[in-house]
Amino acid sequence: MTRKLGVCYYPEHWPEDQWPRDAARMKDAGLTLVRIGEFAWSRLEPSPGDLRFDWLDRAISVLAEAGLEVVLGTPTATPPRWMLDRHPDMLAVDARGQPRKFGSRRHYCFSHPGYRAEAARIARLLGERYGRDPRIVAWQIDNEYGCHDTTLSYSDAARHGFRDWLAQRYQSTDALNRAWGNVFWSMAYDRFDQIDLPNLTVTEPNPAHALAFRRYASDMVVAFNRAQVAALRPLTDAPLIHNYMGRVTEFDHHAVGADLDIASWDSYPMGFLLDRVEAPADHKAAYLRQGDPDFQAFHHDLYRGVGRDGRWWIMEQQPGPVNWAPWNPAPLPGMVRLWSHEAFAHGAEAVCFFRWRQAPFAQEQMHAGLLRPDDSPAPGLEEAAALAADLPRLPDVSPSRAPVALVFDYPSQWAWEVQPQGADFDYFALCFAMYRGLRKLGLSVDILPADPARLAGHDLILVPGLLHLSADMTAYLATTQAQVLVGPRAGSKTPEMSIALPLGPNLQGLDATVTHVETLPPGAERALQRGGAAERWIEAVETRAEILEETTEGAPVLIRTGRQHYLAAWPDPEAMGRILRDLCSRAGIQTTDMPEGVRQRVHGHHKLVVNYSSEMRVFENDALPPAGLVWKLIP
Amino acid sequence: MTRKLGVCYYPEHWPEDQWPRDAARMKDAGLTLVRIGEFAWSRLEPSPGDLRFDWLDRAISVLAEAGLEVVLGTPTATPPRWMLDRHPDMLAVDARGQPRKFGSRRHYCFSHPGYRAEAARIARLLGERYGRDPRIVAWQIDNEYGCHDTTLSYSDAARHGFRDWLAQRYQSTDALNRAWGNVFWSMAYDRFDQIDLPNLTVTEPNPAHALAFRRYASDMVVAFNRAQVAALRPLTDAPLIHNYMGRVTEFDHHAVGADLDIASWDSYPMGFLLDRVEAPADHKAAYLRQGDPDFQAFHHDLYRGVGRDGRWWIMEQQPGPVNWAPWNPAPLPGMVRLWSHEAFAHGAEAVCFFRWRQAPFAQEQMHAGLLRPDDSPAPGLEEAAALAADLPRLPDVSPSRAPVALVFDYPSQWAWEVQPQGADFDYFALCFAMYRGLRKLGLSVDILPADPARLAGHDLILVPGLLHLSADMTAYLATTQAQVLVGPRAGSKTPEMSIALPLGPNLQGLDATVTHVETLPPGAERALQRGGAAERWIEAVETRAEILEETTEGAPVLIRTGRQHYLAAWPDPEAMGRILRDLCSRAGIQTTDMPEGVRQRVHGHHKLVVNYSSEMRVFENDALPPAGLVWKLIP
Amino acid sequence: MTRKLGVCYYPEHWPEDQWPRDAARMKDAGLTLVRIGEFAWSRLEPSPGDLRFDWLDRAISVLAEAGLEVVLGTPTATPPRWMLDRHPDMLAVDARGQPRKFGSRRHYCFSHPGYRAEAARIARLLGERYGRDPRIVAWQIDNEYGCHDTTLSYSDAARHGFRDWLAQRYQSTDALNRAWGNVFWSMAYDRFDQIDLPNLTVTEPNPAHALAFRRYASDMVVAFNRAQVAALRPLTDAPLIHNYMGRVTEFDHHAVGADLDIASWDSYPMGFLLDRVEAPADHKAAYLRQGDPDFQAFHHDLYRGVGRDGRWWIMEQQPGPVNWAPWNPAPLPGMVRLWSHEAFAHGAEAVCFFRWRQAPFAQEQMHAGLLRPDDSPAPGLEEAAALAADLPRLPDVSPSRAPVALVFDYPSQWAWEVQPQGADFDYFALCFAMYRGLRKLGLSVDILPADPARLAGHDLILVPGLLHLSADMTAYLATTQAQVLVGPRAGSKTPEMSIALPLGPNLQGLDATVTHVETLPPGAERALQRGGAAERWIEAVETRAEILEETTEGAPVLIRTGRQHYLAAWPDPEAMGRILRDLCSRAGIQTTDMPEGVRQRVHGHHKLVVNYSSEMRVFENDALPPAGLVWKLIP
Ligand SMILES: [Zn+2]
Ligand SMILES: [Zn+2]
Ligand SMILES: [Zn+2]
Repeated sequence: MTRKLGVCYYPEHWPEDQWPRDAARMKDAGLTLVRIGEFAWSRLEPSPGDLRFDWLDRAISVLAEAGLEVVLGTPTATPPRWMLDRHPDMLAVDARGQPRKFGSRRHYCFSHPGYRAEAARIARLLGERYGRDPRIVAWQIDNEYGCHDTTLSYSDAARHGFRDWLAQRYQSTDALNRAWGNVFWSMAYDRFDQIDLPNLTVTEPNPAHALAFRRYASDMVVAFNRAQVAALRPLTDAPLIHNYMGRVTEFDHHAVGADLDIASWDSYPMGFLLDRVEAPADHKAAYLRQGDPDFQAFHHDLYRGVGRDGRWWIMEQQPGPVNWAPWNPAPLPGMVRLWSHEAFAHGAEAVCFFRWRQAPFAQEQMHAGLLRPDDSPAPGLEEAAALAADLPRLPDVSPSRAPVALVFDYPSQWAWEVQPQGADFDYFALCFAMYRGLRKLGLSVDILPADPARLAGHDLILVPGLLHLSADMTAYLATTQAQVLVGPRAGSKTPEMSIALPLGPNLQGLDATVTHVETLPPGAERALQRGGAAERWIEAVETRAEILEETTEGAPVLIRTGRQHYLAAWPDPEAMGRILRDLCSRAGIQTTDMPEGVRQRVHGHHKLVVNYSSEMRVFENDALPPAGLVWKLIP
Repeated sequence: MTRKLGVCYYPEHWPEDQWPRDAARMKDAGLTLVRIGEFAWSRLEPSPGDLRFDWLDRAISVLAEAGLEVVLGTPTATPPRWMLDRHPDMLAVDARGQPRKFGSRRHYCFSHPGYRAEAARIARLLGERYGRDPRIVAWQIDNEYGCHDTTLSYSDAARHGFRDWLAQRYQSTDALNRAWGNVFWSMAYDRFDQIDLPNLTVTEPNPAHALAFRRYASDMVVAFNRAQVAALRPLTDAPLIHNYMGRVTEFDHHAVGADLDIASWDSYPMGFLLDRVEAPADHKAAYLRQGDPDFQAFHHDLYRGVGRDGRWWIMEQQPGPVNWAPWNPAPLPGMVRLWSHEAFAHGAEAVCFFRWRQAPFAQEQMHAGLLRPDDSPAPGLEEAAALAADLPRLPDVSPSRAPVALVFDYPSQWAWEVQPQGADFDYFALCFAMYRGLRKLGLSVDILPADPARLAGHDLILVPGLLHLSADMTAYLATTQAQVLVGPRAGSKTPEMSIALPLGPNLQGLDATVTHVETLPPGAERALQRGGAAERWIEAVETRAEILEETTEGAPVLIRTGRQHYLAAWPDPEAMGRILRDLCSRAGIQTTDMPEGVRQRVHGHHKLVVNYSSEMRVFENDALPPAGLVWKLIP
Repeated sequence: MTRKLGVCYYPEHWPEDQWPRDAARMKDAGLTLVRIGEFAWSRLEPSPGDLRFDWLDRAISVLAEAGLEVVLGTPTATPPRWMLDRHPDMLAVDARGQPRKFGSRRHYCFSHPGYRAEAARIARLLGERYGRDPRIVAWQIDNEYGCHDTTLSYSDAARHGFRDWLAQRYQSTDALNRAWGNVFWSMAYDRFDQIDLPNLTVTEPNPAHALAFRRYASDMVVAFNRAQVAALRPLTDAPLIHNYMGRVTEFDHHAVGADLDIASWDSYPMGFLLDRVEAPADHKAAYLRQGDPDFQAFHHDLYRGVGRDGRWWIMEQQPGPVNWAPWNPAPLPGMVRLWSHEAFAHGAEAVCFFRWRQAPFAQEQMHAGLLRPDDSPAPGLEEAAALAADLPRLPDVSPSRAPVALVFDYPSQWAWEVQPQGADFDYFALCFAMYRGLRKLGLSVDILPADPARLAGHDLILVPGLLHLSADMTAYLATTQAQVLVGPRAGSKTPEMSIALPLGPNLQGLDATVTHVETLPPGAERALQRGGAAERWIEAVETRAEILEETTEGAPVLIRTGRQHYLAAWPDPEAMGRILRDLCSRAGIQTTDMPEGVRQRVHGHHKLVVNYSSEMRVFENDALPPAGLVWKLIP
């Protein structure tokens, strides 16, 4: 597999005579990919129908002549101001009922048919001009779907779209009323056009209503993306990509990814640490200038599962301080290189830095680039160049199956957001806690959708918190040769968000009935016999299966029959580590206790070891300074 | 007095062929009451005028034939979706100006005349059909008025209603301007239709304006309830009941109760602990699975005062985990029984569990019932049955006057919400702190409105924080043979929310002038000479009365002349205990220092002792395990 | 300079027959000024055009006959209710899009031309009647501009006004697009009427857009004030004054002040401490009943720079507990006198107490006056009288130049609010931290706008955080004989809120380039070699200048060439103290380490020493009790 480095570039931001010098410096730094175009609609079409592709032609020529490959973005995340004159109702509406206005980006509602057609139109126009251009090696569609909470919109377009979607799904309001249990609180509907969006209700809406809206909203992202795919596919053979954003879970990435060729994501380790990693303050302080040691890897492994045939990229990689976290310090020297190596070790085909030169104007003027606003090299450039020099020396590790599969299911995220039952129950956090536990044991992981066809070939399969266990899934879990861990909260609901009857988890061959659940505030953890505790969530289980873990009061917490295990609580880190270690032992997977902040990623006979901590760590005879890394052969 | 156990049941949620078995199991468990119908409007009238009472007829028959007595609810808390087509403006509007939409419950504005008429209509139709039916032993009107912050609405209906109400109250805008002091900041009105609701003002509205709106909003609840009472009264002799919700103070329960026969309330001890009891974190941790040891009793004693002739019920009693608190653990074994015994000891005629079978669908699917969703017994059922077995053995204790009366006045709650002066001044919290102090001394308490006619026969009368002292009240307090404690903040205002002149408290025969007040943030408590401290609120008092308590700097905090005492501060628990003990001593009331978490309720020669703590406690030679209780004769 | 004491009085609140007695008691207490009229519009013009000045004539007569001088306010902060019938769209609109309704005060949008004309009309009418009346010694225009967040309004009037303002400033949308960098995210505009206000955007608006709106909003306050000035100037020779409110920074006080004669401010030390001083909890606890030891002085020194020729007053001085802070305790005895002495020591011509008698009605009924609501003296009256007795004995200290100048620039406040980059970066807080550091060293300070013409004659000039360094400014700083400290963050932007190129600070003769910045959460401070640390904000600087301070890792933090210093971080208190001490030493300014809570203000050969702490302090052989003060000659 060839690994590439790239950069995000905005020729429209700079004088044209600066382009050749920029291109040459990119090439000198060892970069070979350059992403352009994704916010440039107002320059491509300054007024409706007035197409100005000439500057883009010239930019592509300059870049290509310097030996760079171009990734071309569709500019649909930033419709020009005139678009609002054509579609005054295209704006998304927030949960309080206010339109979200022009003046930044992503100012459109995914449900709006008029804007969707405009997006397809500009994609088609770009495809017609550049689809067969060999200098364009890939396409990026839109930018960071869902960023800035833009998946959910409470607009008129969404209201009408939701009613149509419900009519398609349920066919009759009687069926919908039954599915949702609308007899409760006299919520029954007679006509689909009586159904409103589930915002601003007096108290919480029916969770089935809320979950249906969440499914609808995700489908609208899929449909929006698909409209551009449909426009581009006939016009190009280059791969189609979207760049997802970290911990954006409001739409189903697997569903969007199914229409695309490569998954990519935008990796901002330090921004994410302060902005969206759930961790204690001392952990955040320890990793302030490095980013969380597992958050990037989680997304690498997730997007490898989203991309077709495991193909994935980093489309944007933080090269220095960003501008959007609560605080924005600079990375420790070496971290830019470390993050990039880690991405490659997880199978990335490309890592692109965001951005080439720091813009002195507009919203991201405080966001570092590889160059400073005054054109001098920023610290990131040196690390990028060092990385480029590293690349040829790296072992050629193609994506390989990891021993552990972790199921991540977007509808489960929505369901538990709708109904957390305890203030700190969060599906992502549960999956991430399990993932972190695996990483502390030195394990490599594949994160996969809840699809039995994807799970084959792993030695250990983890299915935490899955909303609904389908018949296919229970059949597979009962017959796979892998060790299987299901729970907590998995299989507890029907797809319509009712309680499953018989009560969950309904695993084949494992006798277990969750009779009721308890949520536990901080300080009310339930100690386990073997150490550690259950926190946040614990279930009462009736079972005749073997009990592997129980509370000090004798309530079963981990049970098993054969290879199938059911976990009836959210384990704290100590208990999580023990439970995972025992599972691996049964699965014949070797574990390694990693030092604090040290992580590894294994591919066949190679592995990368990285040190996220700010202190020297020794691991397997290697002394790793802060931000240190080593590639090694596995004997 | 006969004590009854009951349960809330929703026949419309279950197949009709399940009803007989449900009824038989209820009976087997020792339940004799069953409440039905209160959310069933969409089944009773699926479209306007299309009445379907047949299923209700059959449900009543099934229940009655099993030997159960029926409490029938009017379904007005959940108007069907078609009601909005008839009355598009019937929704309440929140303080930010947004309509609170259909999709859950309580989606109506109390001020809306059209909806009020619809509510009276359905009540009348139910009364016509079931009013003389002997199987219906009581009526519940609506459900949990004010729950989900629904008392205050900023709708057009409220705006117009408020103007009419003001015109009735003040007769002229000149009178209103004078009463409110509208000369201040040029706020005078020329016409009643210039007066808006007091939301969204630039800075705080005139407190007189705000208090008037709070009085108006409470009156609308009274009027809404009264419309249904007026419809039902001619049609039935069965008692009319409303089920109030814990710590809902936005309307005057005494005023609503005056139109009804029995007060009932919905008791969710664990939900309330985390959701609406103001207490330190360690206290909440200690009582996490038991509920606060005084919160239920406070409401029992409050609603005994709200019900006609002291008649009151628990209409809903938590039988296991609920779904709506920030966290929802399960009760300690025995607590369901303990809570119910305590209610009976405070004079409840009935305790009904909410609900029979946990619903697998809609908003409350995570709320425990006596049965699990799969029809198996939930833990609460066994406790309910044990309780049913206990009942015949309980001493027959009719409601009797407690030695202590505590005045609780809803308008005072509103007034101090409008004008707390310190961020943590809350009238309910003040009354509750005093109530807790009494309970820790083993005392039984009557909670009563500010009506001298209700206060007779008590040995100690406590009047904290009463907005206004009427001439009747001051006369009574000066002449009663009881010991009297008034203050802090009592008698400080006119009924129109101006400062009383002469300055309060204006007690007859007790020389005291509160010249100014101070509010104290946490950490700024003022130590008292005799120990403990004043917290949150302290007054400067000019007095020639006897000084019983003072700060270490010599400021009077408790003064008295004869039997009348004035308290010029919010005492911390230590000071509160001492002050109350001393008062009891002067009143000839015997006190008992209760162990932590142990409480008692005395009736004549019997008393119930309960242990809310999670540890074994010994009290008067009885060893009480967690959730333990004992009924005993008082020698 | 004659020093005066005064009081705020509302004759319209009291029966006319009480006026003479009030006036006599004011005079007896030693007060000589009385401010009236500023909220009385509804009494002056009860309906449109129906002018009732007779009562005001009589009030002025009564006061003047008692020997009092009158300050007359224009009542434009409280338009009567009928004004809304004439101008229904005059209300300000909040950032969420809701009109801010009638019912309190300041219910107008500064952009509304109709209301502005009404304000000018009532000012003109008052001027015509009282402009030449010798009993009126000064005018107050409006009241506390910007209080209650009223500077920023998102109304239609603001939207249209903003577009006109932009058209004036930029002349073409091309120029605007270039200035703002609207090529970024395709935000370009074709017509000025496409530009909306920068609220409710999907993510943050362009900071240039946001800053332009902040400038516009400030200009509207200036224009509103100027309209009244224009009405009054031809009609009176008495000085025109506005009373600013503490820490209101949304409009440019220097720009408003340029149209007026005297600056005044409303000093509520205890309200401010809890409501708007940023300080640790233990600091707030220590000064709970005294107010912050530097907050008042900061404003004294700021408004001395706002007033023409340094003329400034305290128009409102807290005389006891207020009603609007989170908690409202009473001042320590002596503090009312201390605050007033301190104001005089900083050059105040007058100190007026707010208010004469506590009103028993409306919004401020819990706000103390010099009299209680029952007409008895409140504690403040005695202190006011003691103060009046002090005045003749005070040294006659005219305003003199302080050795230190601190630049405070309102646009910098707006810019950094728009783009803090770190959650706790606040320009006011930065300037205040520097000011507090100076005060702890016993220094007197002039706070001045970023105008070289104003900076002459100081020995030390501090320029923290100045958005933009103009050519005039850099030239001045390079040539002044004063020691100069610039930074952090100064000179980092163009006036249009782009990054300055070359990169800042661009000082003449001091080689320094800030290549990037870091923001630091609490706990991530960077230790300095010489002790203390950088917190919140630190810059990477390339420099060949002398390094005076650096981090323990060797990053330069304070550099200098000649007299010019650049500070590349936000120093913690320890580092701030050392840096300022060293600067003073270089500037030949003598410093004094003040004991905790003790402060001094020097004028020529006199100085005032005050003790803000609640404990006895000894300073220079003077024992100062809590709230103690001493005036002394400097040898
Ligand atoms: Zn991005
Ligand atoms: Zn309920
Ligand atoms: Zn004021």
